[in-house]
Amino acid sequence: MRDRPDIWCTSPSTSGVSSHLTHDYNEHTAAEINGRLIANEIKATLATEVSNMKNSINKVPGLGVILVGKRKDSLTFVRIKKKACEQVGIASVVTELPEDCTESEVLDAVSMLNHNESVHGILVQLPLPNHLCEEKIINAVKVEKDVDGFHPVNMGNLAMRGREPLFIPCASLGCIEVLNRCSVEILGKKAVVIGRSMITGLPTSLLLQRHHATVSVVHSFTKNPEEITCEADILVSDVGVPNLVRSHWLKPGVVVIDMGSTLVKEKKNSCGDVCYEEAMHKASAITPVPGGVGPVTISMLLSNTLEAAKRAYQWTQKS
Amino acid sequence: MRDRPDIWCTSPSTSGVSSHLTHDYNEHTAAEINGRLIANEIKATLATEVSNMKNSINKVPGLGVILVGKRKDSLTFVRIKKKACEQVGIASVVTELPEDCTESEVLDAVSMLNHNESVHGILVQLPLPNHLCEEKIINAVKVEKDVDGFHPVNMGNLAMRGREPLFIPCASLGCIEVLNRCSVEILGKKAVVIGRSMITGLPTSLLLQRHHATVSVVHSFTKNPEEITCEADILVSDVGVPNLVRSHWLKPGVVVIDMGSTLVKEKKNSCGDVCYEEAMHKASAITPVPGGVGPVTISMLLSNTLEAAKRAYQWTQKS
Repeated sequence: MRDRPDIWCTSPSTSGVSSHLTHDYNEHTAAEINGRLIANEIKATLATEVSNMKNSINKVPGLGVILVGKRKDSLTFVRIKKKACEQVGIASVVTELPEDCTESEVLDAVSMLNHNESVHGILVQLPLPNHLCEEKIINAVKVEKDVDGFHPVNMGNLAMRGREPLFIPCASLGCIEVLNRCSVEILGKKAVVIGRSMITGLPTSLLLQRHHATVSVVHSFTKNPEEITCEADILVSDVGVPNLVRSHWLKPGVVVIDMGSTLVKEKKNSCGDVCYEEAMHKASAITPVPGGVGPVTISMLLSNTLEAAKRAYQWTQKS
Repeated sequence: MRDRPDIWCTSPSTSGVSSHLTHDYNEHTAAEINGRLIANEIKATLATEVSNMKNSINKVPGLGVILVGKRKDSLTFVRIKKKACEQVGIASVVTELPEDCTESEVLDAVSMLNHNESVHGILVQLPLPNHLCEEKIINAVKVEKDVDGFHPVNMGNLAMRGREPLFIPCASLGCIEVLNRCSVEILGKKAVVIGRSMITGLPTSLLLQRHHATVSVVHSFTKNPEEITCEADILVSDVGVPNLVRSHWLKPGVVVIDMGSTLVKEKKNSCGDVCYEEAMHKASAITPVPGGVGPVTISMLLSNTLEAAKRAYQWTQKS
C-alpha cells in the first residue's frame, strides 16, 4: 500500500528501475516491462529465504496441486508451476484425477491436502470439468492454505477495508508487483480494469482500490468502453480477446498491464488483449504477452506458498 | 439482476411508478423519490408474508440485536429497527451491554443468539467501542444469520460473479430497490459511488456491478472527483459530508441516491451529501435526506430477517 513516486514521464537516463524496462528513444515508444526479469529477481529472493528456512528449521514449503482431466492449457500451467517450485526449493505434489471423477473424489483430494502437514498451500487448477461444482471445491480448501486467494473469506477480506486477507490472488499481486517495481504511483491515479473475472479482473480492481487508485471496471455490458479506458493512468486488461484494446482506447502516457493471454494458432504463440504495436506509440510502459505479467504471477504463487509455510511454522527470517 | 426499462427521461403523464415520485414540471426539477412510501409498501408485503408464516407453521421470524454502550445515534437506530420489526410482526430481542464490557462478553452474546432457534437474524449495532475488535465479533456471527451481510463470506460471495451471498448489506439492497421501483435501468449504465465504507459504499459498488452497471468508485484520494461524477447516469454518495456534491458534479438527468446522513445541529435534522437545492435543477430523480433511502434500508433488514427465517424453517409462501 506504500505510496511510490511516479517516474514514468522520465528522461532517458533513468537507472535502477529501468533495468526492467527496454526503451527506444528514437521515436516515442513505450518502455517494455520485462516480466521474466522481475520474476527471476523475485525467485532469487524466495530461493534464499527457502534455503534459510531449511537451514534454520529443516523444513521447506510445500505446494499441493489438484489437476482434474487433461486440458492442454491446464497441463502446461501445472508443469510451469511445478518447475517454478523446483527452482526455489519448494516441494510440490500434484494429485491427478481423471476427467470423469466424482465431486466427492475431488473433495477427498482437497481434504487429504488440508490434513497434510507438509503441504502449506493448495491450488485447484481451474477450470474444472462442468460436472464439478467449482464453488463447493474451492470453499473446501482450508483458508490458511488457500494460496490462490479464491476462497470467499479471503476475497471478502480483500474487498473490505481494514481487513487483511490471508492470501491475495496471484495475478493481482503480480500486477501490483510490476507497477511497484517500475515505480508507477498508484495512489490517486485513475485505474481502469477491463474484465471482471474471479481469477484476475475482480481481485485486481479490489487490490488497486486498496492501494487508493480510483478504479473503474469495464465489462462486456459497458457501452463505448474506450470512453472510459482513454482516461486511465493505469490500464489493466483481462478478457482474452486479442487486440481488443486499440490505440484510441489509450491515454498518452498510460501504463498498460496486459493480463489477457489467448493462444493464436497462426502465430503459434499467446497474444494479449492489447494491440501491442499500437500501444507502443501511446503508452509510457507496457507488459508484453508472453513475458509480461504472466511470469510474475507464477512467482507470486511461490511467494504465497512460502508465506503460508512461514505462518504454519511461525518462522521468520532474521534480517 | 433483472433488466428494467429506463423511464426517467419521461413525460409528465407517467403513472404507476410515479407514485413514488413528486415532480414539479413548471421548471426543471428532479423527481423526489419518496423512500417512506416505498418502505411502507415493502413492509405491507412483508407483514402479509409474516402473517402467512404464522398461520401456516405457527412461527415468526426473530431478529437479535446486540447493542454495546449508549451512543445516541446507535440507540436511535436500534429503536427504529425494533419498531419496524413490530410493524411487520417480526419478534426482536435486544441484548444491551455496557460501554466497558469485554470482548468475550460480546462474543458470548453473539454465541447465545447463534444458538437461539427463535432468532434467525443477528445484527451487531456498529460502531463498537474502540476496545472491541469489530472484525472478530462480526466474524463470530453465524453466516446463516448474518442479516447485515457484513461477514466476509457473504461479502466475498457478493464480490464474486456466479456466487450467491446468503445476505447482501441492507443499504445496498435499499439503493437497488429504489432504482428498481423507480424503473431506473442499471445494466450498461455508468454508476459512480462516492465513498467505500464496508457498510454502504463498498457493497453498493459490488451490487451495482452485479447488476451490470459500469462502476467507478471515488474516494478521498481521488483528484478532481467531479470529473468522474459528472459522467454518472446513477450517482450514489455515502461519505457523510453535507453538501459535498454540488451542481457541477452532476450530469443533467442523473439519478441521485444520497446515502449520506449527517446530523446538522442548526437544522436539528439530518443532511445528505448532496446539495439538494442544486441537484433538484440538474438530476432527473433524487432521494431526499431524511426520507429517502434510509427507510428503505430498514425495510431491507426486515426482508433479510424474513428470508433467514424462511430458510431456517424451509418455508415458502404459496402463491
